Amino acid sequence: MDIRTHIKKPTLLLDKAKCINNIKSMIDRAKRCNLTFRPHFKTHQAAEIGEWFRELGVDKIAVSSLQMAQYFAEHNWRDITVAMPVNLREMDTIDELAGKITLNILVESAESIHHLEAELNHKVNAYIKVDTGYHRTGIIADDTDSIQSLLNYIKASSQIKFKGFLAHSGQNYNASDTNEILKNHKECVLELNELKDVFRSQFPDLEVSLGDTPACSISDEFYGIDEIRPGNFVFYDMMQFVLGSCEENEIAVAMACPIIAKHANRNEIVIYGGGIHFSKEYLEADDEGTKLFGSLVNIKPDGWSPIMNGGFLAKLSQEHGIIKCNEDFFKEFQVGDLIGILPIHSCMTANLMGQYLTLEAETIKMMGK
Amino acid sequence: MDIRTHIKKPTLLLDKAKCINNIKSMIDRAKRCNLTFRPHFKTHQAAEIGEWFRELGVDKIAVSSLQMAQYFAEHNWRDITVAMPVNLREMDTIDELAGKITLNILVESAESIHHLEAELNHKVNAYIKVDTGYHRTGIIADDTDSIQSLLNYIKASSQIKFKGFLAHSGQNYNASDTNEILKNHKECVLELNELKDVFRSQFPDLEVSLGDTPACSISDEFYGIDEIRPGNFVFYDMMQFVLGSCEENEIAVAMACPIIAKHANRNEIVIYGGGIHFSKEYLEADDEGTKLFGSLVNIKPDGWSPIMNGGFLAKLSQEHGIIKCNEDFFKEFQVGDLIGILPIHSCMTANLMGQYLTLEAETIKMMGK
Repeated sequence: MDIRTHIKKPTLLLDKAKCINNIKSMIDRAKRCNLTFRPHFKTHQAAEIGEWFRELGVDKIAVSSLQMAQYFAEHNWRDITVAMPVNLREMDTIDELAGKITLNILVESAESIHHLEAELNHKVNAYIKVDTGYHRTGIIADDTDSIQSLLNYIKASSQIKFKGFLAHSGQNYNASDTNEILKNHKECVLELNELKDVFRSQFPDLEVSLGDTPACSISDEFYGIDEIRPGNFVFYDMMQFVLGSCEENEIAVAMACPIIAKHANRNEIVIYGGGIHFSKEYLEADDEGTKLFGSLVNIKPDGWSPIMNGGFLAKLSQEHGIIKCNEDFFKEFQVGDLIGILPIHSCMTANLMGQYLTLEAETIKMMGK
Repeated sequence: MDIRTHIKKPTLLLDKAKCINNIKSMIDRAKRCNLTFRPHFKTHQAAEIGEWFRELGVDKIAVSSLQMAQYFAEHNWRDITVAMPVNLREMDTIDELAGKITLNILVESAESIHHLEAELNHKVNAYIKVDTGYHRTGIIADDTDSIQSLLNYIKASSQIKFKGFLAHSGQNYNASDTNEILKNHKECVLELNELKDVFRSQFPDLEVSLGDTPACSISDEFYGIDEIRPGNFVFYDMMQFVLGSCEENEIAVAMACPIIAKHANRNEIVIYGGGIHFSKEYLEADDEGTKLFGSLVNIKPDGWSPIMNGGFLAKLSQEHGIIKCNEDFFKEFQVGDLIGILPIHSCMTANLMGQYLTLEAETIKMMGK
C-alpha cells in the first residue's frame, strides 16, 4: 500500500506507532514518578485515540470544554476534569454531567462557588486553579488568604467537594531552553508543595495536579505532586521539538499537501494548505522576524522522512501556503506532488482538520465531525 | 427577546440587517460600474446566507475549494469559480462537477492544462491566474510570452474553454491607507487592461475578473474589468475597518464570550474564547509589538454597542482569551457576564465557529456542520 494514493487534498497524517510510543513513554514516566496520569484529550479530541490510552490502563482524563466532556462521557469515560475556569452560563450542562460521571471542575472566585452551590442538584469535585507563574488565570499560589477564603465557602457548600489545587505552567512554552523549563518546573513544584503544606491539616486528602507537555516530557522531579495532565505529547509538534520536549522522530502527525503551483523566478512552491488547515501559529525563525509556519518532510508510501533542509513553509493565507526554498529543492518537486509539513502546534492543526488519516489508510474522526 | 439569554459559550453573532446592507452596497457598486458580481462565498460558507444573495439577483459565485463548490452546487448554484490554482489530485471531483454545473477553474502551468485535457470527460472553463503584484501565485501579468504559451495549449485542447484572466490584489491587505489601496488598484486595473489588449484579437470574448474586498469597497474605477469577486465584505472585520474598507457599524459579526475569571492585581479579564474560536490573527496595535486579537463591544439584547474604549483582547491560548483593560472597564464586567469582540479576520473566525446565531436567535449552519 502507498498512503500517497489516498491523499487528494490537505490531509492530517497520523503515525499510530509513534503516537502509541508517546503514550507509553508518558505512562512510564507517571509510574516511575508515582503520579496519577490524567492525559488532556483536547489535543486529539477523538474517541478512537482515547481507546489507545484506555487499552494501556488510563481511566481518568482532562478536557477543555463541557462539550468535550459530554463527548468523552458518551464514550464511557467516567472521571473527567474540565481544565478551564467554570463557565457560569453552562450550569445545566455541568449539573447533567455531574449526575452521570465523576466531574471535576475548576473554581477561582467566590461567585463561581455561590452559583454552583445554588444551581447544582448533583455533587461535583472542584479544584482551586492556582497560578504558579504563567499569569493567565488562577489565584497566585502564595495568596493563601484568598485561597482560605474560597475554601471556607467550599467547606460550607453541600454540593462541592474540594479536590485540591490545579496548575498549568504555560510559561514553559516561552522558555529558551530545557534548563529554563527544568528551573520553572522546580519552582512550580516547590510552590505547590508549600501550598499543600499550608492546607494539608484542613484537607488531608487534597491532591495537586500539574500539567504541561514540556516539563512532563523532560523532568522526573515531581515530589509532592499527585497527578499530571499533559496533552500535546500525544502528537508533539515543531514547537515542542524546538523547546526540546521531544525528538523529531516522536512527532506523530504531519500534514500532507498537494503542490498547486511553482514560481521559478523566486524559488517558491505554492501548496494547497493554508490558515484554515494549519492555523496561523508560527515560530520565529531568526532575529529578523522570519516566520516559520512548518518544517518540510517528504511523504513516503508508509510515512514521512526526517525534516528536509533547503525549504520551509514561510507564509499562509486562507487556503494557500508558500514554501520558500533553494534551487535544488525547487527542482525536486512538481505540481501535483505531495509535500509533508510538520505542524507548529498540533493541537490547533488537529482542531481545524477534524480528522486523521493513519498510515494504514484508516480515517479517524474527531468530536463533532 | 434578549439574545444574551441564548448564549452559553463562545458564539458568533450575525447581524443580518448589517450583512444584507453590505450585500446590497456591493451589488449597487457592481451595477454602477457595469461589473458582473461574483461574490466569494468562502467567507460565510453557508447555504442560507447564499440565499440572501440569490434573492437580490446574484447567480454566479466563487469558492475556494472543490468541496465548497460541491456544497453550493447541491444548493442550486449553477455557475461556480473555484478561485484556487487547480489541484491535479482532485481530477475526479472536477470532472464530476463539470458534468453538472458551469465550472470555472484556474490554471497557471502547462502541466495543469495537459492533465485536465487528458483526464476530463466534461468541458470546463479556465481562467489563467495572473499576478498583478501580490506575488502569492499566478503568472506575472506582463509575462505575455508565458501566457501565450499556455493559451496555445488551451487552444489545442478540446475540454478546456479559455474564459479570461483572473487576479487577486492581496497586496491591498498590506496597504497603510486607502490612498495606497486606490493606487495599487489603479495599477492592477491598468495591467489587466494591457493584458486584455494583447490577447483580445485572439479571444474577443475574454473576461477579466478581479476581486479583493478593500478595493471593491472603496473604488469605483473598474474600467475594462468585467467581474469582481470580493468575499469578506459580507461581514467585514477589524482588519478591513483599520484598512479603511468599511465603517465600524458595517461589521456584521461579533463573537460573544462568557467571562470566566477576573484578575484585579493586573486589570485582566479572562474570557472563554481562544485560538480555536477566533483564530490567532492579530493586528499590530503599536510600534512596540502589542498584538490586538479583537476589539471589545457590549452585547445588548438586540445587538452590540460601538467599540468600547478602555480594553482590548490582548492574548489568546487554545480556549482562553485575555482582555487587558483599565480600572473602570474592569469594574464594569463580572464573572458570568458576556463580552463582545469584533474579530480581526472574520473569514477565519467563521470557519472555526462553523455556525452563526442571528440577533433573532436563529442558528445558521455552515458547510459540513
